[in-house]
Amino acid sequence: MKTVIIGGVAGGMAAATRLRRLDETAEIVVFEAGRYVSFSNCGLPYFIGGVIEDRGKLLSHSPESFRTRFQIDVNLEHEVVSIDPAAKEVTVRNSAGDSVHAYDQLIIATGALANNPDVLQSDRTSSLRTIDDMDRIHATLNEPSTRSVVVIGGGYIGLEAAENIRRRSFTTTLVQRGPRIFPALDPEMVAALHDELIAHGVTVITGRQVRTVESATVTLDDGTELEADLIIDATGVAPASAVAENAGLRIGDSGGIWVDAQHRTSDPFIFAVGDAAEKTDAITGLPTLVALAGLANRHGRATADVIAGTTEDAVPALGTSIIGVFGITAAATGWNETRLREGNRPHRIIHIHPPSHASYYPGASPLAMKLLIDPSTDLILGAQVVGRDGVDKRIDVLSVAISAGITASALKNLELAYAPQYGSAKDPINLAGYVAENTAPGQMRTVQWHELDALSRTGSTILDVRTTEEFDKSHIPGAINIPLDEIRDRADEIPDGDVIVHCQVGQRGNTATRILAQTGHTVANLDGGYLTWHAGISQTSNSKEQS
Amino acid sequence: MKTVIIGGVAGGMAAATRLRRLDETAEIVVFEAGRYVSFSNCGLPYFIGGVIEDRGKLLSHSPESFRTRFQIDVNLEHEVVSIDPAAKEVTVRNSAGDSVHAYDQLIIATGALANNPDVLQSDRTSSLRTIDDMDRIHATLNEPSTRSVVVIGGGYIGLEAAENIRRRSFTTTLVQRGPRIFPALDPEMVAALHDELIAHGVTVITGRQVRTVESATVTLDDGTELEADLIIDATGVAPASAVAENAGLRIGDSGGIWVDAQHRTSDPFIFAVGDAAEKTDAITGLPTLVALAGLANRHGRATADVIAGTTEDAVPALGTSIIGVFGITAAATGWNETRLREGNRPHRIIHIHPPSHASYYPGASPLAMKLLIDPSTDLILGAQVVGRDGVDKRIDVLSVAISAGITASALKNLELAYAPQYGSAKDPINLAGYVAENTAPGQMRTVQWHELDALSRTGSTILDVRTTEEFDKSHIPGAINIPLDEIRDRADEIPDGDVIVHCQVGQRGNTATRILAQTGHTVANLDGGYLTWHAGISQTSNSKEQS
Ligand SMILES: Cc1cc2nc3c(=O)[nH]c(=O)nc-3n(C[C@H](O)[C@H](O)[C@H](O)COP(=O)(O)OP(=O)(O)OC[C@H]3O[C@@H](n4cnc5c(N)ncnc54)[C@H](O)[C@@H]3O)c2cc1C
Ligand SMILES: Cc1cc2nc3c(=O)[nH]c(=O)nc-3n(C[C@H](O)[C@H](O)[C@H](O)COP(=O)(O)OP(=O)(O)OC[C@H]3O[C@@H](n4cnc5c(N)ncnc54)[C@H](O)[C@@H]3O)c2cc1C
Ligand SMILES: CC(C)(COP(=O)(O)OP(=O)(O)OC[C@H]1O[C@@H](n2cnc3c(N)ncnc32)[C@H](O)[C@@H]1OP(=O)(O)O)[C@@H](O)C(=O)NCCC(=O)NCCS
Ligand SMILES: CC(C)(COP(=O)(O)OP(=O)(O)OC[C@H]1O[C@@H](n2cnc3c(N)ncnc32)[C@H](O)[C@@H]1OP(=O)(O)O)[C@@H](O)C(=O)NCCC(=O)NCCS
Repeated sequence: MKTVIIGGVAGGMAAATRLRRLDETAEIVVFEAGRYVSFSNCGLPYFIGGVIEDRGKLLSHSPESFRTRFQIDVNLEHEVVSIDPAAKEVTVRNSAGDSVHAYDQLIIATGALANNPDVLQSDRTSSLRTIDDMDRIHATLNEPSTRSVVVIGGGYIGLEAAENIRRRSFTTTLVQRGPRIFPALDPEMVAALHDELIAHGVTVITGRQVRTVESATVTLDDGTELEADLIIDATGVAPASAVAENAGLRIGDSGGIWVDAQHRTSDPFIFAVGDAAEKTDAITGLPTLVALAGLANRHGRATADVIAGTTEDAVPALGTSIIGVFGITAAATGWNETRLREGNRPHRIIHIHPPSHASYYPGASPLAMKLLIDPSTDLILGAQVVGRDGVDKRIDVLSVAISAGITASALKNLELAYAPQYGSAKDPINLAGYVAENTAPGQMRTVQWHELDALSRTGSTILDVRTTEEFDKSHIPGAINIPLDEIRDRADEIPDGDVIVHCQVGQRGNTATRILAQTGHTVANLDGGYLTWHAGISQTSNSKEQS
Repeated sequence: MKTVIIGGVAGGMAAATRLRRLDETAEIVVFEAGRYVSFSNCGLPYFIGGVIEDRGKLLSHSPESFRTRFQIDVNLEHEVVSIDPAAKEVTVRNSAGDSVHAYDQLIIATGALANNPDVLQSDRTSSLRTIDDMDRIHATLNEPSTRSVVVIGGGYIGLEAAENIRRRSFTTTLVQRGPRIFPALDPEMVAALHDELIAHGVTVITGRQVRTVESATVTLDDGTELEADLIIDATGVAPASAVAENAGLRIGDSGGIWVDAQHRTSDPFIFAVGDAAEKTDAITGLPTLVALAGLANRHGRATADVIAGTTEDAVPALGTSIIGVFGITAAATGWNETRLREGNRPHRIIHIHPPSHASYYPGASPLAMKLLIDPSTDLILGAQVVGRDGVDKRIDVLSVAISAGITASALKNLELAYAPQYGSAKDPINLAGYVAENTAPGQMRTVQWHELDALSRTGSTILDVRTTEEFDKSHIPGAINIPLDEIRDRADEIPDGDVIVHCQVGQRGNTATRILAQTGHTVANLDGGYLTWHAGISQTSNSKEQS
């Protein structure tokens, strides 16, 4: 049996090595268009920034090592230009010309292609997908004349590129077409990331597109001119599905190659994995695109299992993603509010800001956590966590909770490791469970930061229960202040009618809301408190595209 | 309705505050024998070590703050000396004498008492349970004459005490009666923790008991004499259940107060939570003791819910615990091998040593992970993780997986956040899933480190597939060496009969085992490789009590 694999990085090589372990006798041939096999794509930005000093660390495999250890035949600079499913053959092009190779099974792991929009084309523009891209960018940065870099695109590759370039003290501008960077996060959650970039000297421009690139100047659609010795095109990627499409394989609406739960395309002898292929969305069960290394590796391995005869259906994808920018980590899993609203999917929301570990132990810093919850089932639809410490842990736990069908309220019961360096006796995850339970339908009413303005205009009282000192520092326009500890005595100062209570993060507001609700007030707690409101307002007034 | 609470720290005050939030009209009275309410027990060792500099951080609550915010009546230095369930009254003793107080509901949250064995009694001995203990130890350490400290007990309090005392450069000796420190870990997993203590200058003595304490000398049962200006008694705790027992409440075999799933004791108006009460073991469903702050807080809050009428059964306890000692973090959840063997519970085992994050990104360090798996259901019975980074995250994910009934093999499908600073495209958790799947009954045979000696003696060949350099540095006695990359060519050098393959951690061994199994050998992989074997051997030869 001969398996041919197109693409020699995450998905392709994970399939190849696993297949060898399952079958000593299989013939395994890999065609890779580029000059490197199994390189660490995700490390590229960090070599540029000097965090990874040894370029060789990104290249820990070679055709030779795959041959010696795995008897895998890796052919670099060999591009598969066409597939003939009827003949079960591929045509491969390299410097020596074209050749035709038969297969019993074919795995397409061609990854994604940078969008490379025409408007960005210039001899100063590079995308960041390959070792060659990295080397080119690295060389340009090392030229003494390079001063200013413009990164186009605020997704994770753009952000990682901007961070690493700025780390080397270049004048760095990030231009994002959409209303905010890192769109996996909702506006109020992205504020900290945004502020961190600015605090480290990156100029962040959102809601703007590039109009022209001419010599060393990038001009935006509002006329802004940016000096750019180097332009990084991080405007996004599309599945590299052309070779599949040309072979008549079914392509999904997303542009990715359609596959079944066992990674089989519309041709029974052809499989597709990784960025080139569609995934199944964990929230809707519908096809989607998720370009992440974990899924590419997992599905590559699973495809080898299918070929070797031990089949199992793929688990739907949540798209858990994470990014570190200077001191801030931001992570998301499942769906965000923006997407749920666009999809008209009912949801309720909680925000909390617990310390990353016991606040009496040095080094604790606040986390911002957001959960999107199905109001009827209490299942978690998505989560976002942002902070300086312990973010990856919380998003992982939440991702597992979603996969396992643990309800939002049941988070309170998870038994997470606690010593003061690592967490709290009530871990942030447990607190999320408490707050989810407290605010479930029929329980305490909460309002979201973006609902406050309308409520205030229609006559709701905004009651700030923080201390007078906190109130005096800054407060929500129109709010009145009665500190929580005085609220029982001063309840008569609260006007009749609807009252929206808030504190800094929602915790004292929770206690105040309980007190007032039990003494006959119509009351709601501002979810996430002043902090969430402030972050949301700052992001929406930041960009001209959100009103 | 009047609720009386005995004990004003984790369980008691969590109940009190929650009850207030649920019921503005409840009368809530707390009697606390000690001088402080709601202090942070878990921080005590770190004030001693100077990590927490501000003592006030451990005391963020006071009777006044509870009165102002929560209308809770906290009475310090008031010991409840008896309960009269028939009359629904408690008798309370303080400096002014005894008084009797009626209750509608009573919550017993008396915590645990240090064992204080007679042999350790001396004016130089202190346990470490309260702020007063902490202050006493702190003062002794600040005396110029204090040079040497002996800590008796290698559980987490003993270890945290030893770490913090040694951090201040005192001559520090840790004496553990049992064969190893931190018994939540199995021997091969504890080695790194043990070595870390020694590397930081703590003398660790296992398998020895104290025979006498006389003036400044601790004498062990083998005659060893240890200089001790201060002796910390960390020999363990027992539930503070006497007041309950004397009232005729049912006490479990464990010595803890028996409670139902809603924290009710054998008297319907009396509840018990925290270290004083039994928990339900998540693995067996049987009563057990678990003295951890998370459970105390959770069950305190849940008891308030029950009293307020919104009942829900407690979730069984896994006993997830974690400790940091110098640079090492060690954590465990569920049952360990020692306990499973003692309980004759069928289990299979995997060990892996993945890097804490992508190895090409700076700062990655190896984790040691162990999973105990039910061979028939593939459910995870327990897990242990030890390392310098990312330990808390992995134990939390594993704890959630156990709670959610995610099987060991299904760990491969968890979608964990990956960027190179935080994890790997194949996260350690996913790798554990792969290895669990590969070694499931009927799949690849593995042998454990403690089985190797017997197998070797009965004629199995030990085949080391590491490189010649690795082999030459140190190897398992009797092993032969054929590096993995040469194994296909040199297979004829392998003797007939049973072959135990191993590499450094098990990964190359996995590939070698697959190759040899497919070419007709009877072969098994040494689980966890040389590292696990070496750690296990080092721990078992350490102590006279294990052979
Ligand atoms: C800068 C950067 C940072 C990233 N950071 C992260 C991160 O932190 N976390 C994360 O989860 N993911 C990250 N990713 C994404 C991750 O690398 C991809 O999801 C993953 O590599 C996809 O694997 P794949 O096998 O589908 O495609 P790839 O790994 O992209 O491999 C596809 C290969 O196929 C080859 N190919 C394409 N067409 C042909 C053809 N016709 N013939 C022969 N060869 C062909 C290409 O040359 C390419 O080498 C990052 C990606 C980049 C570029
Ligand atoms: C040094 C140290 C470090 C720790 N570290 C951790 C850790 O890192 N992680 C973790 O999970 N757990 C840790 N713990 C354990 C954790 O603190 C306990 O599990 C938790 O505090 C138990 O809560 P509780 O309410 O049952 O008892 P406690 O918090 O101990 O409170 C019981 C209170 O009841 C009072 N009391 C007892 N009898 C009477 C009576 N008859 N009348 C009036 N009052 C009475 C006592 O004075 C005491 O203050 C640590 C404990 C210590 C001592
Ligand atoms: C602190 C202590 C008195 C409990 O007080 P508490 O007010 O119940 O607890 P916390 O301060 O953690 O607050 C938790 C409450 O705030 C709510 N909350 C937290 N963040 C919130 C937010 N952003 N929005 C809304 N509510 C929030 C929680 O839901 C919970 O309320 P609930 O129980 O009504 O659901 C008790 O845990 C204690 O004595 N601790 C010290 C002793 C100890 O735990 N020792 C061992 C560890 S060192
Ligand atoms: C590295 C690569 C070639 C795959 O090679 P691989 O040998 O399958 O993968 P790994 O080196 O991670 O090893 C995993 C194997 O070792 C096994 N293993 C790991 N630790 C083990 C242990 N301690 N004991 C036993 N087996 C172990 C795993 O079970 C797995 O084997 P299996 O698939 O048969 O179950 C492929 O992932 C790749 O090209 N990666 C680089 C590109 C990339 O991923 N880019 C995106 C991220 S930067």
